[in-house]
Amino acid sequence: MSQMRKDVFTGRWVITAETTTVRPSDFHFKKFARETTFCPFCETNEASTPPEVFAIRKPGSSPNRPGWSVRVVPNSNPRLRIEGELGRRAEEFHDLMNGVGAHEIIAETPRHDRSLHELEILEISDVIRAYVARMVDLEGDKRMRYVLIFKNHGEEAGAHTIGHSISQLMALPVTPGAVKTKLITARDYFALKERCIYCDVLQQELKGRKRLIAENEDFLAFAPFASRFPFEMAVFPKSHNSAFSRISAGQVESLAQILRDVLRRLDHTLGGPPYNLSLQDRPFLRPRAGYWNTIDEDFHWHLEILPQVVRITGFEWASGFFYNPVPPEIAARCLLP
Amino acid sequence: MSQMRKDVFTGRWVITAETTTVRPSDFHFKKFARETTFCPFCETNEASTPPEVFAIRKPGSSPNRPGWSVRVVPNSNPRLRIEGELGRRAEEFHDLMNGVGAHEIIAETPRHDRSLHELEILEISDVIRAYVARMVDLEGDKRMRYVLIFKNHGEEAGAHTIGHSISQLMALPVTPGAVKTKLITARDYFALKERCIYCDVLQQELKGRKRLIAENEDFLAFAPFASRFPFEMAVFPKSHNSAFSRISAGQVESLAQILRDVLRRLDHTLGGPPYNLSLQDRPFLRPRAGYWNTIDEDFHWHLEILPQVVRITGFEWASGFFYNPVPPEIAARCLLP
Repeated sequence: MSQMRKDVFTGRWVITAETTTVRPSDFHFKKFARETTFCPFCETNEASTPPEVFAIRKPGSSPNRPGWSVRVVPNSNPRLRIEGELGRRAEEFHDLMNGVGAHEIIAETPRHDRSLHELEILEISDVIRAYVARMVDLEGDKRMRYVLIFKNHGEEAGAHTIGHSISQLMALPVTPGAVKTKLITARDYFALKERCIYCDVLQQELKGRKRLIAENEDFLAFAPFASRFPFEMAVFPKSHNSAFSRISAGQVESLAQILRDVLRRLDHTLGGPPYNLSLQDRPFLRPRAGYWNTIDEDFHWHLEILPQVVRITGFEWASGFFYNPVPPEIAARCLLP
Repeated sequence: MSQMRKDVFTGRWVITAETTTVRPSDFHFKKFARETTFCPFCETNEASTPPEVFAIRKPGSSPNRPGWSVRVVPNSNPRLRIEGELGRRAEEFHDLMNGVGAHEIIAETPRHDRSLHELEILEISDVIRAYVARMVDLEGDKRMRYVLIFKNHGEEAGAHTIGHSISQLMALPVTPGAVKTKLITARDYFALKERCIYCDVLQQELKGRKRLIAENEDFLAFAPFASRFPFEMAVFPKSHNSAFSRISAGQVESLAQILRDVLRRLDHTLGGPPYNLSLQDRPFLRPRAGYWNTIDEDFHWHLEILPQVVRITGFEWASGFFYNPVPPEIAARCLLP
């Protein structure tokens, strides 16, 4: 019999199919085909993007010139713009504000023919350092409440067909609803138990090991109990930390290692599937955010990796629930090395 | 400049692009191609499905034989099963229950070559009557709290490639989170204003008319202010009613008329796009549902029509927010006859 599983962090229900075996080949996807047309994110094409806002470069190289390993530029077609006032207002019945924020592209590598999981650990570490640097910088903009970092890999996951390996960053004037739901649950749990809900779940996953996918000194990767998607993965720091930007230098390499490991396994197991990756971090603490003054105790940052190998249907849109044909215990087993 | 718009019914933010003109042809989709292989939902193939649980038939015709206009059968590969106990329980840290519920297929027409919007008004009225009949029947099952009715049109919206025009019905042992969010907002609003939030918005849309798409005596169709998707539409009964199953005989035909009208316009404007349709109804009132004892005043049932012409990306999954490249005012203008 199938199960209805409740995600402990959000209250979201997922119908988990009854399956004891899965053929990962059923979920194989056509490999992501990169276009070979002109790409503004390739090394030597730096003049084709807006001027860089951050880069990790070889000593002696100049901004907006070759010689970088990671390069961050404003999106030339941004969904939110950095200029202007928020202008929170009502329009008749409705609430709205100007589309003020930041929308940046993080070119993860100067090479067009490499995906994130094909980079070296030191190169992925540079990508993580770029995330942190941009986040710290944008925290200074008092209009912003949150920095969202995400990645679309493969056309079905929303990647541009140009295909250069990039992450995207958006600074937002409001905390995303998906994160808010997690913050509220974590706060309520802490009020009841005086423990972090995420720390508790990590302990159980480490003990039970049936959904464990990878582990190193600092990080843990597992298939969440109420996974929405087949082969969904979560990556958590083992020690409690609400803010991604407080990651230590040692943890950066450790995160790069586990991220490369699990993305490579995903690629290998499912034949290069499309996926979305996102950082689930706490919001910035602002004067009006007094509501979240216990956030450092309550929340625990993490990464979500969501393979996009099945279609979303009316069921998901109508209910906010999900149907997952692959139980996470089976997914974890398929993803083990 | 783009806008961030807040959906008044859910609190969800949507980034709405700054666009003053839209070419609907940019969103044209390859027309849904039906397979011509054997189809269990076609007339004369009744023996290929589980026995029908409901049908609207010609006088004198027999169950599970030809002669029907709408036929409801259990899904032969159901996500939830009707047999057994719920067995709500904990597994270590987590909440789960057995996948108990109903999962039914509503064949909207005996003909393989017709989509919902290509049916006659009287045929669509029969589909609506089938929804009501199944809902009333399933309300008798005390394990169930909600009946979800939805439709996937086109492969990209999750329809099976077999392509017979069907709706799906799932009876659920829990109220969907998407509906719960709306119930809570509506209750809070009523507590403040002593008015239904939906009635208030309908009044404004009728007055302003800039997002209005269609109207008849009993119903209103408009593009919601914070539409998540390009060309998203909502259909509401004009007079306050929390429960779809209380629809009057006259309203059934009136709903069939407006539904056919807006689906035809969508088909015509976007060249046959994939879409998801869902009924957003109140939950059943159960002993433990005392929390919702004001639901008849608070809530107002409606249909959501979500064209699937752009991809969901990491942005939406990470944030719970949406990006909509087509402002609903422009969409409404494109959809006018």
